[in-house]
Amino acid sequence: MSPIPTAGAPAKTIEFWFEFGSNYSYLSVMRIEDEAARRGVKVVWKPFLLGPIFRSFGWETSPFVLQKAKGDYVWRDMARLCRKYGLIWRQPSVFPRTAVLALRVALVGAEKPWMNEFCQRIMRLNFALDQDIGSEAAVKDVLRQLGLPADAVVAEAQSEANKLRLREQTEAAQARGIFGAPMFFVGDEMFWGNDRLDDALDFAAGSP
Amino acid sequence: MSPIPTAGAPAKTIEFWFEFGSNYSYLSVMRIEDEAARRGVKVVWKPFLLGPIFRSFGWETSPFVLQKAKGDYVWRDMARLCRKYGLIWRQPSVFPRTAVLALRVALVGAEKPWMNEFCQRIMRLNFALDQDIGSEAAVKDVLRQLGLPADAVVAEAQSEANKLRLREQTEAAQARGIFGAPMFFVGDEMFWGNDRLDDALDFAAGSP
Repeated sequence: MSPIPTAGAPAKTIEFWFEFGSNYSYLSVMRIEDEAARRGVKVVWKPFLLGPIFRSFGWETSPFVLQKAKGDYVWRDMARLCRKYGLIWRQPSVFPRTAVLALRVALVGAEKPWMNEFCQRIMRLNFALDQDIGSEAAVKDVLRQLGLPADAVVAEAQSEANKLRLREQTEAAQARGIFGAPMFFVGDEMFWGNDRLDDALDFAAGSP
Repeated sequence: MSPIPTAGAPAKTIEFWFEFGSNYSYLSVMRIEDEAARRGVKVVWKPFLLGPIFRSFGWETSPFVLQKAKGDYVWRDMARLCRKYGLIWRQPSVFPRTAVLALRVALVGAEKPWMNEFCQRIMRLNFALDQDIGSEAAVKDVLRQLGLPADAVVAEAQSEANKLRLREQTEAAQARGIFGAPMFFVGDEMFWGNDRLDDALDFAAGSP
């Protein structure tokens, strides 16, 4: 069993780097807080833009689009994994969806109590309901569902300072060697993909 | 529990497509027969050449070489996974190693009782001992360790008919949409990567 952190002890943490356009990030967004809580691990949410990182490899879009055989496989894999995890799945008719505003809002909300629910709702729009996540209307609608002041949150998200922060977070991702999403860090130990979420959390919890 | 196939019933089978140069194939070669036996599943070994498939994507070598950040990650990931599975790991000083003769021998041996042991020994040379697997001497040495007539097996492997069979098997891999290794098929259901070996075997065994 994972130890429950005692008051005053430094919390065991995992950094969760993710993108709303990334289908494997969907699986981790839906699972991570429950799985982390079971192990007494705190999640540090790190939204970033995958597009600039792909472009640094010379890719204009997702490798799942660039490589047709891999792309066909990924949708089959997603259907199976969602069934396994009990998640709703609908293959998005637009892929990858850009979600710059939603990522900026996620940066504003990263340490707020509504972060997990906001991210899950954006992900459900994209991968369970096949709906737009890029528009201001879509993002504000989710914020209102959470009882939040949508106009004020979006205004903060669209401030120059916050826009810059998202660019800087994306540059930090690249500097740390992040080449895809989701990516997990426990200290300097990097774990790639939803397939490594449990290993990363076990490592964070100090399990063998 | 997986049902034990009764005499006369069609065996539950999994196709295992692999390459000796592929590090994630190493993990599956070392694990598959034990894991399949536990579930009453028969393994159909399908050696093929990954090089022509990568070249069809315009890649002259492994994506782990072409993408440095991903490559750096893969070696760390391999070290962790080998520890988890109790396998010896040494990062190969030459990667990816070509192993055309060893793959031709594997094609000769695919339904022979020595197949599993031959493949495990070739994989250990590459990924546990960091030794050449491409030379005739290396392949014959492994065959002799198994008490096999090395000269006769290699002569059969190098026959024009067998060389053609490996090319045809590689073309069949491509026609089925195989884009990497290891790849598993249960009927038409395709599973990619050592990370899906257990799911693929459960599917083959008819488990939920």
